[in-house]
Amino acid sequence: MPPILTVFERSPDRGRGLARDMRVRWALEEAGQRYEVRTVSFEAMKQAPHRARNPFGQIPSFEDGDLVLFESGAIVLHLARRHAGLLPVESVARERAVMWMFAALNTVEPPIVEREAAGYSERDRPWQAEHLAMLDARVRVRLDELSRHLVGRDWLERDFSAGDLLMVSVLQRLGGTGLLDHTPALLDYIARGTARPAYRRAFDAQRAQFERATVP
Amino acid sequence: MPPILTVFERSPDRGRGLARDMRVRWALEEAGQRYEVRTVSFEAMKQAPHRARNPFGQIPSFEDGDLVLFESGAIVLHLARRHAGLLPVESVARERAVMWMFAALNTVEPPIVEREAAGYSERDRPWQAEHLAMLDARVRVRLDELSRHLVGRDWLERDFSAGDLLMVSVLQRLGGTGLLDHTPALLDYIARGTARPAYRRAFDAQRAQFERATVP
Repeated sequence: MPPILTVFERSPDRGRGLARDMRVRWALEEAGQRYEVRTVSFEAMKQAPHRARNPFGQIPSFEDGDLVLFESGAIVLHLARRHAGLLPVESVARERAVMWMFAALNTVEPPIVEREAAGYSERDRPWQAEHLAMLDARVRVRLDELSRHLVGRDWLERDFSAGDLLMVSVLQRLGGTGLLDHTPALLDYIARGTARPAYRRAFDAQRAQFERATVP
Repeated sequence: MPPILTVFERSPDRGRGLARDMRVRWALEEAGQRYEVRTVSFEAMKQAPHRARNPFGQIPSFEDGDLVLFESGAIVLHLARRHAGLLPVESVARERAVMWMFAALNTVEPPIVEREAAGYSERDRPWQAEHLAMLDARVRVRLDELSRHLVGRDWLERDFSAGDLLMVSVLQRLGGTGLLDHTPALLDYIARGTARPAYRRAFDAQRAQFERATVP
């Protein structure tokens, strides 16, 4: 039996590929693995059956036989260790690729998600613009640092890895904010990632799910 | 040669064990491994020699022969895979422990760090109290979810693992905020973690470093 990935029935990003199941779909496609999908509504996501898979009531979760995992980073790492194509074989290079997975999720993503959250949760506050300017400055520090690291490189290390997969997907959340305009190296990097055939297949699959859920 | 851990010369938490090198020290002590320490000042942390170890100019970094790593989560995972005592041997349990490492760093820590950042960066804004109340509500959602998961358990899964090590260290950042008062299960959980002899040794080592740096 193929593994089961639990995803939004109807992603709040309207199929733009920003929900966290996209990372797992992309990893599965890079690894050439089939999978099945279970959809959950926003209500079901917070109820007991899904909380048994993920106590935080989030997507994605992943089931493969006895193994039940949540956290997109953990699922991508599980797949990357099990299948070729997402981590180098040589041990130092492999550890460095895993390091970039953590950097994407614990250093680069948090200020980006924070900025996004302020965008909707503070919409009716008179101080939103002032706060967003502070958050933008924090995001820019990370973008500049990452951009300097990528000078003269196609990927974070020599070869594409699960670290790039997560980093590209984190940076994509900034689409439409204008924050990437000052770091063309990051725009090129995102373009290299999203041009991969595995990315396209994953993107099309999540888009098709959104479209199925919104048929009139 | 023992590995080298780069830490703050003088931690901004004044030796309370909240800097991210503490996680790595704790993991090294659980694994029974010796290590050496290199200290960096706030200025040196942002300059080229340290940026070569970590492009984001943060601590900790870790060097062991050919291997240079940054990101506390990645370093802890590296140690946990290499030495006994931090991950179960059986494969499903092992994957679940790694999953909790990601949950600590990508689901639980971000709103906690955000709240902390608002505490100092918005100190002179008239809207700080209103914003902190919003952030507190977000942190409480995660604390309640985690607390429900811990009912009847000593650790996140059956045995103590690197997932607990990171989760306890993330929750400790809430000390003094009052946010843990409504989740006694989490206070007990933190107390279990910090009572471990390996934690105490790591704590004492980082405290001694702070004291050495502040000798009059």
